[in-house]
Amino acid sequence: MEKNILFAQSGGPTQVINASCYGIIKEARKYDMKIYAARYGVEGILNENIIEITDIDDGSLEILRFSPSAAFGSCRHKLKEDEFEKVLDLFLKYNIGYFLYIGGNDSMDTANRFSEYVAKNGYDIKVIGIPKTIDNDLLNTHFCPGYGSAAKYIATSVREMDFDANVYEKNIITIVEVMGRDSGFLAAASALARDELVESPHLIYLPEIPFDEEEFLQEVSDVYQERGKVLIAASEGLKDEQGNYIFLREKKADKFGNIQMGGVGKYLESIVKENIADRVKTIEFSVLQRCAAHILSKTDNDVAAMVGSAGVRYALEGCNDVMVSIMKNNDSFSTSTTPLKDVALEVKTFPREWIDEKNRWVTKEAIDYITPLIQGEVKPIFKDGLPKYLRFI
Amino acid sequence: MEKNILFAQSGGPTQVINASCYGIIKEARKYDMKIYAARYGVEGILNENIIEITDIDDGSLEILRFSPSAAFGSCRHKLKEDEFEKVLDLFLKYNIGYFLYIGGNDSMDTANRFSEYVAKNGYDIKVIGIPKTIDNDLLNTHFCPGYGSAAKYIATSVREMDFDANVYEKNIITIVEVMGRDSGFLAAASALARDELVESPHLIYLPEIPFDEEEFLQEVSDVYQERGKVLIAASEGLKDEQGNYIFLREKKADKFGNIQMGGVGKYLESIVKENIADRVKTIEFSVLQRCAAHILSKTDNDVAAMVGSAGVRYALEGCNDVMVSIMKNNDSFSTSTTPLKDVALEVKTFPREWIDEKNRWVTKEAIDYITPLIQGEVKPIFKDGLPKYLRFI
Repeated sequence: MEKNILFAQSGGPTQVINASCYGIIKEARKYDMKIYAARYGVEGILNENIIEITDIDDGSLEILRFSPSAAFGSCRHKLKEDEFEKVLDLFLKYNIGYFLYIGGNDSMDTANRFSEYVAKNGYDIKVIGIPKTIDNDLLNTHFCPGYGSAAKYIATSVREMDFDANVYEKNIITIVEVMGRDSGFLAAASALARDELVESPHLIYLPEIPFDEEEFLQEVSDVYQERGKVLIAASEGLKDEQGNYIFLREKKADKFGNIQMGGVGKYLESIVKENIADRVKTIEFSVLQRCAAHILSKTDNDVAAMVGSAGVRYALEGCNDVMVSIMKNNDSFSTSTTPLKDVALEVKTFPREWIDEKNRWVTKEAIDYITPLIQGEVKPIFKDGLPKYLRFI
Repeated sequence: MEKNILFAQSGGPTQVINASCYGIIKEARKYDMKIYAARYGVEGILNENIIEITDIDDGSLEILRFSPSAAFGSCRHKLKEDEFEKVLDLFLKYNIGYFLYIGGNDSMDTANRFSEYVAKNGYDIKVIGIPKTIDNDLLNTHFCPGYGSAAKYIATSVREMDFDANVYEKNIITIVEVMGRDSGFLAAASALARDELVESPHLIYLPEIPFDEEEFLQEVSDVYQERGKVLIAASEGLKDEQGNYIFLREKKADKFGNIQMGGVGKYLESIVKENIADRVKTIEFSVLQRCAAHILSKTDNDVAAMVGSAGVRYALEGCNDVMVSIMKNNDSFSTSTTPLKDVALEVKTFPREWIDEKNRWVTKEAIDYITPLIQGEVKPIFKDGLPKYLRFI
């Protein structure tokens, strides 16, 4: 009897993580095997919260492909050594020969350690990692599916906000807080908003560059004096020289005696209001940047599906303990593999050489890297004026 | 010589205010007249910041139609009596016979008073108001262009956030702050997010219903106990029994000693954290709900263009001192006129009979009213993966 395949989703959701499931299902269906999905990542494996998805109808499969968030649920559970036996038991019970784990660097670590455990115990289960993260911080892959769509959302929204900010003659400072705790790829994507008409963002603050409050105020003040309108894109993960997150700083009371709370955006708002101008607007994209599937990148979605399908093929070809990685060849993308242990727990930061000398803008190389990832639009299925999405939890 | 036409945009921008300019230009071009636009609303008239737009090329006109925000700029300037003479002088200089003012109830008041001034001084200038506001709070019109697209953005985003909130098994309370200082139409639009899968929003707080903190905490707690996940849509304009905005309330320190600042959302977050649960996320749609042209409603855009064109025709037919109003006839929309003084400064609130008896949901009548306004999608022109927009300021 052919062995069966199981996949699970892990970590923060993206606009295209379900496209990888679509790719897995499409490919695995070509073979005589059952396709299982664990609900809520490895937690579903530990709790035997497993569904069989082999016979999903084509219509649902298409909707799944363009649905945001993890349609089978996710978790942030890092599998401990003493849980491996339980996982293995379930795999044997369902006759699982291939396990595909869609996630980021923590998930790749879990997959790597489990794979080693399986081998040590003499079983033959192929474990493959499928890359996914809007942060784009996995090593050994050209990019991570999820990043392209988040980048498209961020650049589109910043451009639209530039139009809003320019409506009145009055001056205004807008602060946009973008995700990315350790890596500046998302904040850098805001740079794409600029075109012949759009000057926003004027300043980009990346977590790779230590944050200096005095410098920040001087830079904002300079643009404000010159242009009257300033749009600042700030990564949630800004840290000072000592590596302390600035959003954890003791907050200052504003002139009304109120003390700000919140993330980087609100913190920057408080110091800008205190030192530069009163008219400040802060917008946190929050979860919108990872769930706005109505503006996903077709390229990102296509590649997410591709890595899912490739994962199945690699597993059937006998690959094990590897992550599917993405390569760029001129205008197209292809896949390869990289050992899980080389990417597990590692963080790729935004390249220093892609940050301009003044530290507040990105180079042409960076723009040329991000631009292909946001290409193409897909309209989800709309019903009664709203996008129709699917989930299995 | 045929007299010329001048239009101006006023108040807060919308996703479709430029579609009304498109309608005006398309219609006025059929006649032998010059088409002028004032920059930054009446401020542009006072400063002679006027551009002629008669010969705009068709390609730009199409992009204009789908561009967000006021492409000719806006203002919140309420014309004073002693400024009318200056306005009239400019109108005479440019031989303006028709003035179309696109705006909300303040703008309709300005237009009304100016129209009366013109008549009193024996001049023949037709003054027409073109309705526009995402708040949907103008009287004597089935709806206000701008509302349909903001409603579509809000319902789409709430639905997508529901998918995000359900990814983990962990409980979470999400608070969404929606615009609408005096009128609950925007908050009510969140109700459309619900479908067979989506339970969000669980509770809607409208400015028409006095806010009671104890009641609020009880309601949130009830849903939280029952479902574990709660999504609350709250209007920025929530007021207590005495009519005081609750976002102006003295803020309470959280358990870390920090004091919240911000709008309604952050205030509600602070009391929920203090009384119900720690895992709370607040999202303010802020300007995104009025500038996200990439998800505008085709119906809304079509009607915005229609009221612009109709305004030109009404003016040429001799109508004066009226606002173009929208009527709904079965599945289509048509226009009529209503005296400016009947709509000036008046606010339409969300109908009491459309709020369910428990005050936290809207009736089927409300859903049936909003649904037709969000129908249809238009993809803007995309270039390099991002929407391409236009402005003339």
